[in-house]
Amino acid sequence: MQYVAVDGYGGDKAPYEIVKGVEQALESISDLFIYLTGYKKELEKLVKDFPKNLRERLEIVNATEVIRMSEKPSQALRLKNSSMALGIVLVKQGKADAFVTAGNSGAAMALAMFTLGRTKGISRPAIATLLPTLDGQMLMLDVGANVDCKPQHMLEFSIMGAVYIKYVVGVKNPKIAILNNGSEPGKGNQLAIASYDLLHKSKLNFIGNIEGDEIYRGKADVVVCDGFVGNVVLKVSESIPDVIAEFLREEIKKSFWYKIGFLLAKPAFGVLKTKTDYSEFGGAPLLGIRGACIISHGRSNANAIKNAIFKALKFSKEKVNDKIEKTVKNCAVLNQLKGAVRP
Amino acid sequence: MQYVAVDGYGGDKAPYEIVKGVEQALESISDLFIYLTGYKKELEKLVKDFPKNLRERLEIVNATEVIRMSEKPSQALRLKNSSMALGIVLVKQGKADAFVTAGNSGAAMALAMFTLGRTKGISRPAIATLLPTLDGQMLMLDVGANVDCKPQHMLEFSIMGAVYIKYVVGVKNPKIAILNNGSEPGKGNQLAIASYDLLHKSKLNFIGNIEGDEIYRGKADVVVCDGFVGNVVLKVSESIPDVIAEFLREEIKKSFWYKIGFLLAKPAFGVLKTKTDYSEFGGAPLLGIRGACIISHGRSNANAIKNAIFKALKFSKEKVNDKIEKTVKNCAVLNQLKGAVRP
Repeated sequence: MQYVAVDGYGGDKAPYEIVKGVEQALESISDLFIYLTGYKKELEKLVKDFPKNLRERLEIVNATEVIRMSEKPSQALRLKNSSMALGIVLVKQGKADAFVTAGNSGAAMALAMFTLGRTKGISRPAIATLLPTLDGQMLMLDVGANVDCKPQHMLEFSIMGAVYIKYVVGVKNPKIAILNNGSEPGKGNQLAIASYDLLHKSKLNFIGNIEGDEIYRGKADVVVCDGFVGNVVLKVSESIPDVIAEFLREEIKKSFWYKIGFLLAKPAFGVLKTKTDYSEFGGAPLLGIRGACIISHGRSNANAIKNAIFKALKFSKEKVNDKIEKTVKNCAVLNQLKGAVRP
Repeated sequence: MQYVAVDGYGGDKAPYEIVKGVEQALESISDLFIYLTGYKKELEKLVKDFPKNLRERLEIVNATEVIRMSEKPSQALRLKNSSMALGIVLVKQGKADAFVTAGNSGAAMALAMFTLGRTKGISRPAIATLLPTLDGQMLMLDVGANVDCKPQHMLEFSIMGAVYIKYVVGVKNPKIAILNNGSEPGKGNQLAIASYDLLHKSKLNFIGNIEGDEIYRGKADVVVCDGFVGNVVLKVSESIPDVIAEFLREEIKKSFWYKIGFLLAKPAFGVLKTKTDYSEFGGAPLLGIRGACIISHGRSNANAIKNAIFKALKFSKEKVNDKIEKTVKNCAVLNQLKGAVRP
């Protein structure tokens, strides 16, 4: 049996869509057991109509509080009976192999770090996210856990990203790039320049710097940046299609023929939904944490939760953490820095 | 008479579109005189059919070299007879009131800084760019001149951005925001947190932090960030509409009805072209330079050059530099920092 703890009260559509996602996952995988955390009474009502063969592979773990999306990580740490904290504790206890939440990612990172600790050899765990490219997908990290970084952290992100996309997503020999304001070596801020040197010396498949306009063209499989830049890029990227749609919507109203044309072509726009549908990407892993934790998008629907559970299982099954630990241990460049900055 | 120096060999479409833009500007403004820099023989051929009343308000200044888009700023400084360097020298000599180029922006910044010097009280000149929002436009800076910044520089950017958008674009009491990975005070990297404190204490119309997804929603008139983040955001933003278009193009091919629908609705897509048409925005000003320099987009067509010339004239006429100097002088917060970091 494989065990996953799921935060029943994480995200905008909790608990209804979370429960539905859990049901779909249980249907798809016959040896899956789910611990669902949250307000037990309410959750019981939602699962009471589950078929018996699903219900018997589900345990509800009662929580007395919920971490809000606006909660500060430092505050969240005190909410020890929250649906999120209890899910992570289940991983710590070895009852669950992995944890999934669509809740507050900063809080999840803080709780996971505090409860599970860091992967050996990693000084800065990171949040990574899969994003669509013209011909597939790529992993960007960090997207918010570490706003001020040192070159060493960028090297750690690169190693973790490479291991994750290789074993969980299945990209062979992933190409790693530093997000930069210029493509030539020597370009960038102090962090990018020093990180370039480290990555260049490492044995990773480092392809150099890429600029902002190259991210979505699929030039690299892993795009490395500090969490400040990553977070801003992620949010800018998510907002632009919406802004474009609003511009278009206003314009299409202006003519009958535009409306007809748009109705005819509308299904084609579905491709954008599919390509940018976070629910298909299966969530953002916390990398560098001693445990498999996946943060699903705050707007997660059932499908997103189901896919996040799949990714969490793969994360656990592939022993991503062991592989990161091993790669870090064998990384001469990182070992040389040990004395200087590493914990 | 008003005098503008124009780099005849800057940008991808030089010299043809530059010359056309100059012609349009001369047609529009009867007391405009243009110094056009570049290879004289070639330029003479292009302007020989200008009507007499335009040709007599145009002087071609011969250059023996051209700064390429890939040239490093440090290299560009040595090319003293380049079309770009000669244009900036004309401003220095007082022959031209302003300078316009669609060339290499890093080189233009380096040459302008070296030749014209900084505006009094400004330690870090910046490149600012106007971008479309849902209901208008906003100015983002820095977008590439300063990749590593101190809080003081962010305050300088804010002052320069506010003066420019107020007097050149006409936005009264512009709202200023710091680009950040969270909206609450106390969020962000060290630079953003410390900059927040400075801006909060200043007399600027500071509205706090904005996140990446709020940039294009028009929440702020001036968005301040370091040049690394600004450059990445700008390039990501420019690429996403193209990527979306490529996704759509592939999809529309798949059905006859999609094609018909798209053809009918196509004019509506024109709104995106207009909204995001850099040629309407009139280029990116170099702020903090003792002189009015406008960098037009590298893909500038005639219209973009014409509008950049208009902006350059406004920049000069409104004495943007004097106003920046005065605002800086009266900024108590900035004066307090003087002893510590300022030049």
